[in-house]
Amino acid sequence: MENATILSEGVFGTTYGKTANGLVRYSKRYKILSVIDSRLAGQDAGNVLMHRYAGIPIISGVEEGLRGGAETLIVGIASDGGVLPDSYRPYIKTAINNGMNIVSGLHDFISDDPEFSKLAKRTGSKITDVRKLFKERKYFFTGNIEKVKAKKIAVLGTDSAIGKRTTAIYLNRAMKAIGKKSVMIGTGQTSWMQGFKYTVVIDAIVNDFVAGALESVTYEAWDVERPDYMFIEGQGSVLHPAYPGSFEIIGATRPDAIILQHAPMRKYFDGFPGYEIPPLEKFINILELLSNKRVIAIALNTENMDESMIKEEKSRLQAKFGIPVFDPLQRLSSVTREIDSYKI
Amino acid sequence: MENATILSEGVFGTTYGKTANGLVRYSKRYKILSVIDSRLAGQDAGNVLMHRYAGIPIISGVEEGLRGGAETLIVGIASDGGVLPDSYRPYIKTAINNGMNIVSGLHDFISDDPEFSKLAKRTGSKITDVRKLFKERKYFFTGNIEKVKAKKIAVLGTDSAIGKRTTAIYLNRAMKAIGKKSVMIGTGQTSWMQGFKYTVVIDAIVNDFVAGALESVTYEAWDVERPDYMFIEGQGSVLHPAYPGSFEIIGATRPDAIILQHAPMRKYFDGFPGYEIPPLEKFINILELLSNKRVIAIALNTENMDESMIKEEKSRLQAKFGIPVFDPLQRLSSVTREIDSYKI
Repeated sequence: MENATILSEGVFGTTYGKTANGLVRYSKRYKILSVIDSRLAGQDAGNVLMHRYAGIPIISGVEEGLRGGAETLIVGIASDGGVLPDSYRPYIKTAINNGMNIVSGLHDFISDDPEFSKLAKRTGSKITDVRKLFKERKYFFTGNIEKVKAKKIAVLGTDSAIGKRTTAIYLNRAMKAIGKKSVMIGTGQTSWMQGFKYTVVIDAIVNDFVAGALESVTYEAWDVERPDYMFIEGQGSVLHPAYPGSFEIIGATRPDAIILQHAPMRKYFDGFPGYEIPPLEKFINILELLSNKRVIAIALNTENMDESMIKEEKSRLQAKFGIPVFDPLQRLSSVTREIDSYKI
Repeated sequence: MENATILSEGVFGTTYGKTANGLVRYSKRYKILSVIDSRLAGQDAGNVLMHRYAGIPIISGVEEGLRGGAETLIVGIASDGGVLPDSYRPYIKTAINNGMNIVSGLHDFISDDPEFSKLAKRTGSKITDVRKLFKERKYFFTGNIEKVKAKKIAVLGTDSAIGKRTTAIYLNRAMKAIGKKSVMIGTGQTSWMQGFKYTVVIDAIVNDFVAGALESVTYEAWDVERPDYMFIEGQGSVLHPAYPGSFEIIGATRPDAIILQHAPMRKYFDGFPGYEIPPLEKFINILELLSNKRVIAIALNTENMDESMIKEEKSRLQAKFGIPVFDPLQRLSSVTREIDSYKI
């Protein structure tokens, strides 16, 4: 694993910093040594993110990361449209000047930037644009998905940047902990960076090939691993105006069940305050019609909720929908056992 | 307009020939002089397609097209995955050898093919890969769609290759005929070839930019034309495993009403005989939930139906759903007036 620092200036812990947040929670491709966000410098990234010490210091700049041993700078932002903010350019320049490698999941490809690519050629820095890896590939849906005998569970959400990936990762881990063979199917650039082997970055793929990409990675995971379960990371939200995602996931991976991630306090779609998030029952209704399967549990994103609100909301939703409602950041052994007991 | 012949060998009049079929029905960018399909040589393309003489002869090969005055060869196939069939290569080679221009809507870019591009350089042929025009562009959803005051009607379908584009074109024309200002919003490569100014080829766009592309072309059409109506061409089908399309159209163009194209005799999804098409009511249910608007009419694709079956099915569906059911290939003045009378 390459030693890395994550550039997340001004956004660590927010939805815009979700790539950084994800890598602090879980990373097998890169060893995360530090996070750059001068607002929070001196604190521990785990403490800021999840009130749990992670041994990953938040620092103020690239040089500090270098001194700490980082060889790679990961651009840890998920900006709207995947644009590189101008304010991030000096950090990347400094990193390349010092011979560091760059990893980015933005649509603005660092390796296509004349200034950066020229500089990198001189210093020998390697630039990895994760989304570029997927853009030129053509995938075809074949129907092979019908041969997959694992129980495929899609973790979808009512909004983008709501915690679908994290929930899928944690459920996958919890399923293994109760003795089942389970595989995570990643669908975004952060999952790729985190090192999940079976990942396709679907928002970077030409639209016509998205279904084929999803089917082929799911089939490959089955063919190689023969797991009992697969947890499939959702994307966007079926009702989001700008990121109307997860349809291809339903169509092409043909999940056996859906877990729906929901943030009770979120009123508007991520990044689009003019657009109100419709009621939870509407999502359940649409997802069950589309998949012809059931939403078997609700994963709560508890942002802006205190303990008593969480407790109350949990029992309210549980009573209303008659399915488990759980906090994916808490212990998952009981909900995992419950899921495993279902006939799906 | 360039004079063109359409290469459609072996598939004219079938769903695989839908690009050729569309251009025979309507073409403002190219003047269609002939169609190549040796199976049907000597017949009139209009007669074969719609029992109406079009003055477009079906011929056997490129040389015959050339002698007829064609300067351009349009690859008129919509193959699965947009792949160029090997059997089409000799036609393209002959055309380039004779200095003809090539227009293709395939994902396999003709201009990236070493043999073709080398040859074209020598003969001066211009190669236009329609999907390539859209692949590198980045579009962002902004919410500008809310400023569009035209009545936006999306023509969606229960399947791919079912006639959505043709219905949208004909309704657009019929709406103009009753004195309304109406604009067609194209979303596929055939619409672009047909010359519809406000077209984005969404299946060629990187997935994350599809919503933005649809919003921006719709907004631009409004900004420039200020129409009363817009007819938006749907793509794929919400329940198609390989082409789960039209979601971004609902999310990003935010239609005021939906017209649903349906082929009563079609049992399986286009190209995927393992996958049965669910009942019409399921589509209506899903589309109304997703759009928060109504399906206001059903457009019938009457393939494999005789007159009496059509009549019977029309009254059955009309009674069942309480909305107009019409054949888009027949006179549309009455259904258009009815649509215009709705408060949407």
